[in-house]
Amino acid sequence: MKSCASLLAEHSLPPRHLSVCPVETTRRRVLAVGLIGPGRVGSALLDQLRAAMPRLARDSGLELKLCGVAASKRMWMDCDDAELNGRHGGAQTWRPSDLDAFAAHVAGTDGRHALLIDCSANEDVAARYGQWLAAGMHVVTPNKLAASGPLARWQAIRAACASGARFRYEATVCAGLPVVQTLRDLLDTGDELIAAEGMFSGTLAWLCNRHDGQQPFSALVREAHALGYTEPDPRDDLSGIDVARKLVILAREAGWPLSLEDVTVESLVPPSLAALPREEFMERLDEMDAPMTAKLAQARTESGVLRHVAHLDRHGRATVSLVVLPATHAFAHTRLTDNVVQFSTRRYCDNPLLVQGPGAGPEVTAAGVFADLLRIAESLEARA
Amino acid sequence: MKSCASLLAEHSLPPRHLSVCPVETTRRRVLAVGLIGPGRVGSALLDQLRAAMPRLARDSGLELKLCGVAASKRMWMDCDDAELNGRHGGAQTWRPSDLDAFAAHVAGTDGRHALLIDCSANEDVAARYGQWLAAGMHVVTPNKLAASGPLARWQAIRAACASGARFRYEATVCAGLPVVQTLRDLLDTGDELIAAEGMFSGTLAWLCNRHDGQQPFSALVREAHALGYTEPDPRDDLSGIDVARKLVILAREAGWPLSLEDVTVESLVPPSLAALPREEFMERLDEMDAPMTAKLAQARTESGVLRHVAHLDRHGRATVSLVVLPATHAFAHTRLTDNVVQFSTRRYCDNPLLVQGPGAGPEVTAAGVFADLLRIAESLEARA
Repeated sequence: MKSCASLLAEHSLPPRHLSVCPVETTRRRVLAVGLIGPGRVGSALLDQLRAAMPRLARDSGLELKLCGVAASKRMWMDCDDAELNGRHGGAQTWRPSDLDAFAAHVAGTDGRHALLIDCSANEDVAARYGQWLAAGMHVVTPNKLAASGPLARWQAIRAACASGARFRYEATVCAGLPVVQTLRDLLDTGDELIAAEGMFSGTLAWLCNRHDGQQPFSALVREAHALGYTEPDPRDDLSGIDVARKLVILAREAGWPLSLEDVTVESLVPPSLAALPREEFMERLDEMDAPMTAKLAQARTESGVLRHVAHLDRHGRATVSLVVLPATHAFAHTRLTDNVVQFSTRRYCDNPLLVQGPGAGPEVTAAGVFADLLRIAESLEARA
Repeated sequence: MKSCASLLAEHSLPPRHLSVCPVETTRRRVLAVGLIGPGRVGSALLDQLRAAMPRLARDSGLELKLCGVAASKRMWMDCDDAELNGRHGGAQTWRPSDLDAFAAHVAGTDGRHALLIDCSANEDVAARYGQWLAAGMHVVTPNKLAASGPLARWQAIRAACASGARFRYEATVCAGLPVVQTLRDLLDTGDELIAAEGMFSGTLAWLCNRHDGQQPFSALVREAHALGYTEPDPRDDLSGIDVARKLVILAREAGWPLSLEDVTVESLVPPSLAALPREEFMERLDEMDAPMTAKLAQARTESGVLRHVAHLDRHGRATVSLVVLPATHAFAHTRLTDNVVQFSTRRYCDNPLLVQGPGAGPEVTAAGVFADLLRIAESLEARA
């Protein structure tokens, strides 16, 4: 099989004009954008936006005005340095972060369309979505804190959209894969959700795929850790909490008033290891082997496979657990670290609708955020 | 496994309000809609739209004004009968079809937003998209004639979008599965397509899945024909032309100026059977068995599986053919009649992005059209 690099070396780009509708110059729209959290995803997004700006302006009349970047301690605003450059402006142009001042700067005073993109994982930022939306600023984020956080706050954020501002968060579930929008389209067109199930952790998918009894589970965890497939503390993956957050987001999208506490989560971490310091946990990883070996044996007596699955049923019951699936199940054949989700609905009843692919990584996550931005930009195209 | 019906009998619907942003009453929008082609898909769409109208008006301020239905011979307009009913108005309210008068009626004279939905498979209708779009009317269709038809007409249709009107056709490829929009989002966010491949015919997928040598291929074709899985003349499926049309649509979406003649299509119909009357073709079906048995044997010597695949490469080369895929390939494990598409891009390089599920049927096709309608309706929400 050819390598990605060699394929791209040969890759000839087609003329994009064919697939883009030309627009009247009179339909030119400006969207002021402020980015919060220039980390791995935020930086990838800045690169994608800068690369796309000329094309978007030319082909769809959309002028993105990137007018600020805020990190946890410092922020940079275009009034400090009119010329955008790859370094978010030089250090000397930074000032201490002040989220309210930052939002006010992006909003401007001329009634322009403004979007705040939150690529941080910061509660203080999520806590402000409601006021920003109420003020008419659009908000897009790959950050799960708000969409899977306290239900009351979530409902307040939804209510704040009454201003007409949009809040989008496709990248919170499976990064750039079309999951949240697909579920929304199914329901908005009148379909009824019977079940949503998926594997929302590339790490756990990899561990389940590789766990064939050849080597102890702990060895696989160590390998995944060494490969950088896991969080610095693998328990952040093994606990299943991050997966549960994604399930809460889908459940709420489907109309269920669920919170994290409502999800039945089976942690792969034995209680005896849950509270240990990380180093000690890593030393005692092999205590996971016996229970995992037993689960694998159980799966084999049922001639099935072991998979870590998040499941939402038609009554709003949400579970995250290791389950035994028949070898014919779609989840039994996923690629090593792929995420996968399938929706069973009244229309997609006998065969569900399935979306699969890489569900993590800065570039695909940033692209999911970018797609949300474009969806919002489309909504700025109405007739006066 | 529980039946679909029993699942739905138990099915409890969640409160949708949670997942819908409330809107100011001042953001109310009206979209006049005219449907052309009240066949199986068109009728399913009318049912879906009628059922959704109250919810859309309440939850998103979108008022759909269904103001006409046109069939090939007759058309009905709301000025004939203000009250919509399940029968598209009684026969006495019909008048002879006149597409131009129909479009003018839907467009109205008050500068309202207007959408024509073409659920016909009629060249005369497709030939009018350009003038309708140029006049500012939006057009949505599941009909492949325009998107896979003459390139010059396609380009003229695209150019007509300069009016600001939208032309959408998600349902032309894999019905309601999110395929065209997913490809568009990948490219619009700056990704680069390396390859698109898929199985776009549920009939051929079923035949390939079932073709295991236990019974002759001709027996499977007869079974599929009896089950209604095939067109009245199975050659319409076996020729691969319909699949090639879908590939042309994706290729153009990716920016390649392809036409049907540019696609290398391997027909499963032996030349000796291609020109026969249908009855005679059905009688001589078993002449397909020897070549298909040989292909299956070849696949097995390579310990692979036989699949009917449409493939677009990074240079815009398009092929539709029976191919041998390794047993580990994602397409080797699809459900009987599922469609599947996978996009390999710069970002989705080692593992492609995959969408799978039922890709035909009136309800899911209508839902794909409905989703396009909602996407256009979103674009009517801009600030004045």
